[in-house]
Amino acid sequence: MSEQVTLYLHKLSPFSQKVELALIEANAPYRGYHVNLSDKPEWFTSKVNPVGKVPTLTYGGPRVDPEDPSSLSSKITESNVILEFLADVYPDSGLLPKDPVSRAKVRSFVDASTKQVEGPLYDFIRGLGSYEDLLKGIEFVQGLLEDGDFAVGDHYTIADACISPQLVRLKTITETDLGKFPVGLGFKLGEELKGSKFAKFTKYADQILERSSLKQTYDEVRIFPLPWW
Amino acid sequence: MSEQVTLYLHKLSPFSQKVELALIEANAPYRGYHVNLSDKPEWFTSKVNPVGKVPTLTYGGPRVDPEDPSSLSSKITESNVILEFLADVYPDSGLLPKDPVSRAKVRSFVDASTKQVEGPLYDFIRGLGSYEDLLKGIEFVQGLLEDGDFAVGDHYTIADACISPQLVRLKTITETDLGKFPVGLGFKLGEELKGSKFAKFTKYADQILERSSLKQTYDEVRIFPLPWW
Repeated sequence: MSEQVTLYLHKLSPFSQKVELALIEANAPYRGYHVNLSDKPEWFTSKVNPVGKVPTLTYGGPRVDPEDPSSLSSKITESNVILEFLADVYPDSGLLPKDPVSRAKVRSFVDASTKQVEGPLYDFIRGLGSYEDLLKGIEFVQGLLEDGDFAVGDHYTIADACISPQLVRLKTITETDLGKFPVGLGFKLGEELKGSKFAKFTKYADQILERSSLKQTYDEVRIFPLPWW
Repeated sequence: MSEQVTLYLHKLSPFSQKVELALIEANAPYRGYHVNLSDKPEWFTSKVNPVGKVPTLTYGGPRVDPEDPSSLSSKITESNVILEFLADVYPDSGLLPKDPVSRAKVRSFVDASTKQVEGPLYDFIRGLGSYEDLLKGIEFVQGLLEDGDFAVGDHYTIADACISPQLVRLKTITETDLGKFPVGLGFKLGEELKGSKFAKFTKYADQILERSSLKQTYDEVRIFPLPWW
């Protein structure tokens, strides 16, 4: 029987969503537990993650009530670290390819989407980042996309899981203009992304947004942007 | 015969140094090529890395003159991505342990030292970051250190390679007070790190700074801070 896996998450957290997507795509059995971040339970910081952040994954140890976590499980934090962990624990999931050069391509994509889209996008939504930086980041990541249905190679990898929460939120802000950026800039971004310059990126995003894994975790992020952003 | 490995580096770049350390510690044959960043050769951006950054590693393909790179080699960029690549290509080097949980610990350390020490330290040196953020980052990373001679487990891993360039530069600024921070703050940091609160971190740093791999790459960073910082 496989080790127990519990994912402590917040339903509106894009970082939690990354990890949940990877678990679903790997067809891995796991228990999800929504942590109320506005009224964080004491046991979460004392027994799961002293930093108090989601996502945190517990792995192994006895199968216990998530609200009474065991000291015997390993606690893994930071979404991109958890993605790598899942690829290690489920080597046949295809979350990472076998060949070192292909693995490096996946990691370059994760690195670029994290630094060049995730950061600028969430800054933009919070009214802290520039439209131009975000667009430049998307252009850079587009340059890494291969021709198939996935970011890298012919299989869903942690590269796709990593960028998916960003794609969902890009869709939302370009369709609703909701965010702390100047009024109209979300719609403008949407128009820009529909242009031929971003055709490859948009085609990729549309494909990824159609996946059932994303739909399973998408409805949960309908309230957006988050009140604390 | 193993694949060719060429590391395009700058002798004063902490990011290049990370990768060089991992190559030396893995006992991997490689050719280092110093790229003149102040007068970047055209072939570097056209044939090695369009972004023009070091470190970039070429892997495989024919053994050619580094100044005439082959289109047949794979080009890997971003220091932390290259570290993972080296761990994949040299699985017996111990650069990453075999067990998934231990690998996650190494990656958590890489993640923390990158976000919480590397960023704040280089910002501090450039006069852009706060003393407090740097100290908080060091404290956080200290909390991840295990009891042995290495960051994680009983072997040199990419966690040690990742933080080493930061440790060297911390040593330099605390001994010389050289940097764009307010005069005296480098010395003050040195005093603080000598206190009992940071004993574990300092003990670890002292051990790592004694390694021959670091000495082989240390002399090259004697001119510091960099003129363009």
